[in-house]
This record gives sequence, C-alpha cells and structure tokens, in this order.
Amino acid sequence: MASISGFPEFLPQGRLVETRAIDILRSVFELHGFAGIQTRALEPLTELARKGEITKEVYVVRRLHAEAGDRDELGLHFDLTVPFARYVVDNAGALSFPFRRYQIQPAWRGERPQEGRYREFWQADIDIVGQGELGFHHDIEVVLVMLEACERLTAELGIPPVTMRVNNRKLIQGFYTALGVSDTLAAIQAVDKLAKTGEAGVGEILAGQGLGSDTTRAILRFAAIQTAAPSFGDEIRALGAVNDSVEAGIDELERLFGAVHERFPANVVVDCQIARGLDYYTGSVFEFELQGHESLGTVCAGGRYDSLATDGKRTYPGVGVSFGLTRVFAPLISKGALVAARAVPSVVLVAVDSEATRGEADAVAARLRGRGIPCEVSPNAAKYGKQIRFADRRGIPYVWFGGNDGEVKDIRTGAQGPAADWVPAAADLVPAILKNPA
Amino acid sequence: MASISGFPEFLPQGRLVETRAIDILRSVFELHGFAGIQTRALEPLTELARKGEITKEVYVVRRLHAEAGDRDELGLHFDLTVPFARYVVDNAGALSFPFRRYQIQPAWRGERPQEGRYREFWQADIDIVGQGELGFHHDIEVVLVMLEACERLTAELGIPPVTMRVNNRKLIQGFYTALGVSDTLAAIQAVDKLAKTGEAGVGEILAGQGLGSDTTRAILRFAAIQTAAPSFGDEIRALGAVNDSVEAGIDELERLFGAVHERFPANVVVDCQIARGLDYYTGSVFEFELQGHESLGTVCAGGRYDSLATDGKRTYPGVGVSFGLTRVFAPLISKGALVAARAVPSVVLVAVDSEATRGEADAVAARLRGRGIPCEVSPNAAKYGKQIRFADRRGIPYVWFGGNDGEVKDIRTGAQGPAADWVPAAADLVPAILKNPA
Repeated sequence: MASISGFPEFLPQGRLVETRAIDILRSVFELHGFAGIQTRALEPLTELARKGEITKEVYVVRRLHAEAGDRDELGLHFDLTVPFARYVVDNAGALSFPFRRYQIQPAWRGERPQEGRYREFWQADIDIVGQGELGFHHDIEVVLVMLEACERLTAELGIPPVTMRVNNRKLIQGFYTALGVSDTLAAIQAVDKLAKTGEAGVGEILAGQGLGSDTTRAILRFAAIQTAAPSFGDEIRALGAVNDSVEAGIDELERLFGAVHERFPANVVVDCQIARGLDYYTGSVFEFELQGHESLGTVCAGGRYDSLATDGKRTYPGVGVSFGLTRVFAPLISKGALVAARAVPSVVLVAVDSEATRGEADAVAARLRGRGIPCEVSPNAAKYGKQIRFADRRGIPYVWFGGNDGEVKDIRTGAQGPAADWVPAAADLVPAILKNPA
Repeated sequence: MASISGFPEFLPQGRLVETRAIDILRSVFELHGFAGIQTRALEPLTELARKGEITKEVYVVRRLHAEAGDRDELGLHFDLTVPFARYVVDNAGALSFPFRRYQIQPAWRGERPQEGRYREFWQADIDIVGQGELGFHHDIEVVLVMLEACERLTAELGIPPVTMRVNNRKLIQGFYTALGVSDTLAAIQAVDKLAKTGEAGVGEILAGQGLGSDTTRAILRFAAIQTAAPSFGDEIRALGAVNDSVEAGIDELERLFGAVHERFPANVVVDCQIARGLDYYTGSVFEFELQGHESLGTVCAGGRYDSLATDGKRTYPGVGVSFGLTRVFAPLISKGALVAARAVPSVVLVAVDSEATRGEADAVAARLRGRGIPCEVSPNAAKYGKQIRFADRRGIPYVWFGGNDGEVKDIRTGAQGPAADWVPAAADLVPAILKNPA
C-alpha cells in the first residue's frame, strides 16, 4: 500500500488541474485539425528495444501464469513516438497522408526515482507524418501549435512561459563530418550530456572516442552557440567546418527560427547544444523549458524523424513534439501551487429536510442537471448547519434548501434568495483553478 | 508488429466514437457531482492477488534490468475497484466522506483471447464510499446515474437499451445459510457459472461441494427466479428458506427495484441468478446487458461492498458500478456499425494558392480558430481539384479558397459563397457519429 515512488497520484482537486490542462491541450490540437488516437500500452519488446539507450528502463510484462503460445515478450511503452510510428505502418492503407494526430496517454520508464523524474508519466504528443515525403513547413507548424498550447496553459493555468531551444541534426551531423568525426551519433550522444556533465566531462568522452583536441574544441565551441539573433548562420560558418549538410541545416534552422521568432519573439533561441539523445532524429530538434524553472529540465521536446516509420518498402517521414504533462504539472499539484477551488464538480448541494422528502430533493437535482448545473443531494437529513458544513468542506459554494419552492444560499457570503430559476454565477459553474493559494 | 490479439486499436474515425462516449459518460457523472480521479496502472501484486479467482489473469511487471531495492512484485490492475479501495485508504485523511468519484481508465487481464474478451480494456466506474457507514439510498443512486448515462449513450450514439439484472448478496447468503450450506461463497461462485455451464453443470459442482439433492434443487429453483413484477418477495419466501438475512435482502432488493423501476420501467428485472464471482460484494449486486445483444454478455456490473476498503481500524463501505467501454464499443467500432463522419476534427480546409502565399492561408486559419472553428491548411499548393480531393478523403465538408477575401465551398453540394464571416452549419462543427453506414 501507500505510494510507490515515481507513480504520482492526486487528490480530486489536483486531478481537476490535470484534467483542465488536458482539456486545453486537446482543444488547441483539435482546432488545428489533429485527430486523437490511442495506442495500446504494451508493445513487443523487440519494437521497444530498437531505440538504444532507453532499453534498460523498459518495463517487461508477462502473464502471471503464462501459457504455451503466449507472445512472451511484451513491454510497457516508454514514449508515444515509437508506438505511433508502429501504428502508422500498421494502418498505412487506411490513413490519409499527411496524417496529423494527437495522443494523450501515460508512458512508463523504470528510471531511478529522483526529483522531477517519474516512472509513470503522461505525455501529450502531436505529430504529422507523410508518405514518402513531408514538407518542411510542418516542422514550423507543430512547433507553433505546441507554443500556442503552452501560451494557453500560461494564460489559463499560470504555468511559466516556455523557452524553446532549437537546433538541427543536419547541421550537427554535417559539422561533425566536416571535422572528420566518423561516429557522429556517438559524438551527438556525448554532447547531449553537456548540461549534466559539463564541458570537461564531455571533452573526456569525446577524447575517449578518439577525437583530437582541435576537433573536441571545435565541437564544444559549436555547442556553446546560444543566440536569439538571426545572424547565427555566420557565427557557425566562422568556425570553419562547412559543407552542404551544414548549409542545409543552417537554412532549415533559419526558416524555423525566423517563423517562430516572428510569432513568439520571447520564447525561442537557437542553441547548438541541443542534440536529443535518440537516434531517430534527422533534422529539426527542439527542447522546451519553463522560464525561471530551468532546473526542472526539458518539459517538452521533439524533432524531425525521416525514417523512424518504415515497413521496409515505404518510409513515412514525420515531425512531432511531446509535452510532458506530468513533468510540468505533478510538481505544481503536489506542492499545492495549483489547486481547484473545490474537490467536486457540484456547484450546489441540494439539502434534504428529512429522509421522507429525499425524493423531492432528488427531483430538484434532476431539474438542475437538466439545465446543465452539476449538483449533488445531501447524503443525510442532518441539521441545516451540518449540511452547510458538508458543502463547505468540499468547496461547494451554494446550498439549496426547502425543496422546489425553497431558497438558495451562497455559503461564502451568506446571501440567500428564492430558488426559482436560480442559476449560479458563471464563474462558479466550473471549479476555478487557484494559483499559489495560501 | 501488426496487432496483438486482445489489444484493440482504432482508426481516428473509430477513436472519435470512443472519445464521444467518454465525453458523454464524464458529463453525466460530473452533473451528478462525481469527482474524477486516476490511479496508477500498477499495484503491488499482493494487493491484486487478494481477490481470489482473478489472480491467474494478472499481468506481472518488472524492470528489464531490475536492481537491488526495486519493489519487485508489481502488476497491472485488472479492474478499477481494487485500486480505488486502496486509494481511499491511502488518502482517507484528505478526503470528505461520503466520497463520490468517477474513474475512466484502461485495465488489463491476461484472459484467453476470444470474441468480446479483451486483454486491454477501458472501464468507466462510479463509486460512492463512506467512512464507517453509507446510506442504502446510494445503492439506488449509483444505479440511476449509470442508467441515465446508458440512456444518453442510446440517444446520442444509438447503442441498444440496457437491461439491468439485480439481486442481493444478503438474500443469497441468507437463503443458502437457511438451507444449511456452510461455504456460501463457494456455492455463489458455482451459481455464477449458470449462464456458462447450465443447471446440470452447476448441480454437479454443488453436489461436489457436499450439498444434498434437495438443497441443490432449492438453490437452482431460487436462481431461476426472474421477474419484473414487484411481488418477487413472496415468490422467494414460498421456497421456504427464510431468515433475517433473507428478509433484509428482500427489503433492500424491493427498495432498489422499486426506485429503478419507477424511473426506468423497461430496463430492470430481478434475477436471482445474478451473484457476481468476486468475494467482496455484501449487498446489492447487478449486471447490465444490451437488449437484443445478450450474447455479448455483461457490459456493466457492480454492487455494494461493505468491507473491501479497510486499514484494519476503519472500514469504508462502498457501492459502485463499472461500465465496460471497450466491451460495448470495440465490436461496434470494429464492425463499422458506429463511425465518425470524418477522420479529423477540421470542419474546413484552407486551400493554398502557392507556397509564397501560405502565410495568408495560415492567417485565415488562425482567425477561424479564434472563432472556435477547427481547421487545417492544405499541405501543398496543388491544383484546387487535388486540394478538394484531399478534403474529401478526410470527410472535411468545406474548402476555403482565395485567402482572406475568398470563397467557401461546401464540397458535398457544390454550393459556394463569400468567405467573409463564414460559419459552418452547426451540425458540421463537430464530426457527427453515423450509425450503420453503408
């Protein structure tokens, strides 16, 4: 019993915050034409194990009493991108491309539990996948949609604004190749540890990969470029390692940065340290962090993957971004920095005079619901004072007394009036989300 | 790859049906003041294994590379009642009782895959739990709320009406005790197999439990009582095995049946065969089936459990009912009996004249979204005919041409008009759900 480390659960007034966040994300995604899908929680282990580094964190699942013929090796998915790529290939014949989908589900990783890390966590992903080809403008699109969603979360739930750090794999890979690095993925994964390990540590890893000190120095100088100025292309070229891939990467990065900067000037920087550890990214890569809460780490990330989804014959290039719902909201909810104004949807409690007249209270409640007003009937016919305390403990703002021709009291102010055709204040209908309550 | 038996996945136009069903259930539950919660997907195996029969179907979960100190025995929950009881005990100090919650989540059982059985399936549960005590009127309440939800699903999605079969454990247990049966739970679990095994089979099992032929005959005569007439109490008493527990059971059953029959006369019968296999039920028990689709089995079930949730000192009696979302909707969606009118939320496609004017199309789309109209921009600047086919393949009913001062065409009728201040027909804004399409 009790809690299991890394598996957060919330009280109703916390879950309401999370539900509101999900509703906001879903609303933005649907306004942009993304279709919702869900994939099963379990995937064949062979699918999950292909992604390198992450394998050791996979949860393996088997039946307690497995039988002959059971597919023995299943695992819980560790993100929503790998299952989505599998879904696209499975259903390619029935989908229309480019296919735009959102997916809001939990994923599981057996990480070492620590501050801000969860073993069960919700993600909200959007991706656009083409068949054979996919226009670059979709890279811009998914990023703008997610930034719009973050802006709504900031406006409605008060989460801090985000900073998106953007880079490009063509640029990184081209730059490393121009420097003579042969195992570029190994170098990328080393640089991906910069924030954790520091320059000296990464320098050592790169040296261990057989790179000379000039090369290592150039890689670290490149990774140090962080700017919100549109002139970053020249800054990169000045490092001297230029080829077609570098130029293609700079071109894409300029287009993405330019389009995002135009609409969200305070929320985007070019950061050549961004690499993403996963091997399937092939172009744009980006990470979002919360301004003023950078220590929380990446709350949202994604990129372009040109060959993740393939059935051997056809390839389905995609681009997507994944919002870390639990990463962002679990700390805010746990600390009580965000909490719903009440623990129940009910905006009014219908009091019961005596068990003999419970039917009358039920009828009042049924009529309220018919008018779209969430309510509940008192569980007992205690004294009115006790019924008011019952409402108060839950944060229910109104109590209806005396049956059909009764009165409604706002228990916050004590104001009371005739119940006929009563409607709650618009602001009370749905529980408000309170920020940093006392 | 490909599908894993028992783990259903849907195309977007099918998932939309499921989402609509979830939205309807959530709306009804919230109108009745139930608070939404979620519990983690994993529970300690010791928690899951306490429930007898079901143990062999539990999925065990472990980290691929387990480490010292890992809690080694976790399993995926097989229903939402057991985790909820654990949640109540964990959080008792922070909850207000009676506590009303709904919970819509997947659960997992490693059942032998067969028609209508799923290994991953969604349930929508409502429960009311008290601290120490819980009024019987809550038994009536949860049933009425679920029947109202089913009524909405019938009205809005066209699922068949339900029949609720209701019985009472006090009655069953009292009746068996009056007959001299000592292991009443074993007898209950035998009778629970009646529909599957038939009278002869159950008779054999009961004989195997050491019951005499008179006793077995009485049990089977009792189980054969099925009626929608309010006189069932006398019919039961006529079997001759009466005691206080039988009378208490008849009284509760009469109150429950009477209240439900008053509001849903076509949806309830007393059925003394209903027992529920799980050992934690102590009073009302009920199962719902779809009228005309009885072969699909139970689509919804629940009952009263007075001692499932306990911390040793305090007990939290509860009553609840669980709607089998996947059981009901997966067959309808898979067969295409229910499908959304389009595969995307977008009600209008904004055409692109040339890549140079994509920004203008983006601006049109942004204004539409600002007015709450879901839309998407054409992925390319192909000829208009091709862009219309793009919309048509997804079922998007309208195409907007010519930028801000352009025109909007209803591609189903060919009707075209000026785009200024255009709004879609109200019926088109959200994808309609089509029943039994060609």
